[in-house]
Amino acid sequence: MSLKNDRFLKALLRQDVDVTPVWMMRQAGRYLPEYRNTRKQAGDFMKLCQTPELACEVTLQPLQRYAFDAAILFSDILTIPDAMGQGLYFAEGEGPKFRKVIRSAADVERLPDINIASELSYVTDAVSLIRKELNGSIPLIGFSGSPWTLATYMIEGGGSKDFRIAKQFMYDNPEAMHLLLEKLASAVIDYLNAQIKAGAQAVQIFDTWGGILTAQGYQEFSLAYMKKIIASLHTENEGRQVPVIVFTKNGGQWLESIADAGCHAVGLDWTTDIGVARHRIGERVALQGNMDPTMLYASPKAIRKEVESILKSFGKGNGHVFNLGHGITPEVSPENVAVFVEAVHEFSSQYHD
Amino acid sequence: MSLKNDRFLKALLRQDVDVTPVWMMRQAGRYLPEYRNTRKQAGDFMKLCQTPELACEVTLQPLQRYAFDAAILFSDILTIPDAMGQGLYFAEGEGPKFRKVIRSAADVERLPDINIASELSYVTDAVSLIRKELNGSIPLIGFSGSPWTLATYMIEGGGSKDFRIAKQFMYDNPEAMHLLLEKLASAVIDYLNAQIKAGAQAVQIFDTWGGILTAQGYQEFSLAYMKKIIASLHTENEGRQVPVIVFTKNGGQWLESIADAGCHAVGLDWTTDIGVARHRIGERVALQGNMDPTMLYASPKAIRKEVESILKSFGKGNGHVFNLGHGITPEVSPENVAVFVEAVHEFSSQYHD
Repeated sequence: MSLKNDRFLKALLRQDVDVTPVWMMRQAGRYLPEYRNTRKQAGDFMKLCQTPELACEVTLQPLQRYAFDAAILFSDILTIPDAMGQGLYFAEGEGPKFRKVIRSAADVERLPDINIASELSYVTDAVSLIRKELNGSIPLIGFSGSPWTLATYMIEGGGSKDFRIAKQFMYDNPEAMHLLLEKLASAVIDYLNAQIKAGAQAVQIFDTWGGILTAQGYQEFSLAYMKKIIASLHTENEGRQVPVIVFTKNGGQWLESIADAGCHAVGLDWTTDIGVARHRIGERVALQGNMDPTMLYASPKAIRKEVESILKSFGKGNGHVFNLGHGITPEVSPENVAVFVEAVHEFSSQYHD
Repeated sequence: MSLKNDRFLKALLRQDVDVTPVWMMRQAGRYLPEYRNTRKQAGDFMKLCQTPELACEVTLQPLQRYAFDAAILFSDILTIPDAMGQGLYFAEGEGPKFRKVIRSAADVERLPDINIASELSYVTDAVSLIRKELNGSIPLIGFSGSPWTLATYMIEGGGSKDFRIAKQFMYDNPEAMHLLLEKLASAVIDYLNAQIKAGAQAVQIFDTWGGILTAQGYQEFSLAYMKKIIASLHTENEGRQVPVIVFTKNGGQWLESIADAGCHAVGLDWTTDIGVARHRIGERVALQGNMDPTMLYASPKAIRKEVESILKSFGKGNGHVFNLGHGITPEVSPENVAVFVEAVHEFSSQYHD
């Protein structure tokens, strides 16, 4: 099926586009009143993820308001450990939690070998449904958490301030940690390939917590497994390339090695100057990012100025997908998002021939 | 007065030493039972900071246990805004809070012009007393928060997850923010000079929150003011150089510009490979750091291995002060700290002629 707007896919492959494409991490989310309504009706966050019709509904909501150049599947990064039987739940106002935690090599060994793709058919069903509803307007992004990021939650039993338990496990039981990451990498491969088969036209690996590691730890415990995943993805489907984006929050010091991991694009958080990043790795991969998400609390004037400044820093030519440097936060006003999206399209045309 | 052990000062000036000197951020702190006792007797955290005898007592406590090569004044980074009348207090288990907050240009203008050195005589009295008690054994480090870091707390009214209010203020009222930072920089200059005059033999600027800024924002709102401070410090006292250390947590992408700020040493958090940092800036300044603080929860074997690996990464030659990449956390076992300190001295002799 042909795409009416394929800017996003083209930019990821560093091909010519008319304006810089833009989407936002967490664009289907709590800052939108219509999302909060659907979420309320669903009753429970997991119900929202597990009901393809509802996941599809919230995925499409931001597209009614804004001229985003891509949709992203609405789901949670922790579906894989949940499918492995760890018992994911969301305590009100507390973020994700697991009923079971991994604290020993035996716990890792006990993790069941399951058919991730069939266990997570609610995700692939959502992908198919969203593709149908998008009807060729813009491409759909699938995603997964990175093995390291999934492991931190599974070991800690939820989020953490310093990930002390996960790191202690890594430092004291590196073999068990590697076994866990190995199992998770296999699951992520099956999961992303199933999303691609169901219709995801690009995939992003969210390495939310890779940036809490040492430089050496990052290579060994996070990047190595993402590399392995990328090498096993079916990155051609429907006669088109399926680009892979790697986003390591706080990974700005390691861009060269991320760019060498086999991905098509590297996501940047807002602490990296995108012009510097382009100079470092932009001839090898596309770059995605990177406005400070808290910028969306500022005035429209300040937002427009910042968009201009990021576009200017990247400069002329292709290979840039505009995004925030991390997910949009719940208290942002939807009006400011409109200012942001419009500014990207308005100011970027001068940077493309 | 001559110093029995001047390794720390020598390493900061990139002079020859026998073994790599070591100290720990927050070495006087809650992981020590004797600290918790004194804190309990003081009743209140501010009382501990404001009573020179008690501040001196806790400063010296870790030196009874460990062969640290420097002592650091026990105090809080938020004494300056407190002296400006913002009403610092510590809610149990919640971190620092301010009774007043800065939310407008008028709030900034209303901040009183005070004589910081005399308002904070409890700090300089503590410095003098600690110097007397140290009796020339090891040098004493004075410190201050960076203007940006102080400003974030003053605007937010305490710590924050995303510093949204502080950033919104910066994005929407850059002039008012610059006025606030200007006022704070003046205060920090007076404060650090008073500490030096009272006997601090090195000073560290803690830029705890500089790393949440964009690359451009960091230059303009944090580093520029630290530069200004460094240029105004009296870095000679008692016939000796008083080295200045700048520590921006999460500043690994900006090391070159930090090294150019006029400081003698750059503090590194654990996400930077110290060998890479040395290659980037180590011919210009000394480096301080940078073991992951959560490493102290691991086994003695793992701790020793990590110390070896950091020393090896830095390599032969001078200009390294060993430290953690951030402050030690309260639940660490004091035994593991002994393992850490001993490992630094034991393994580092081979890297010095």
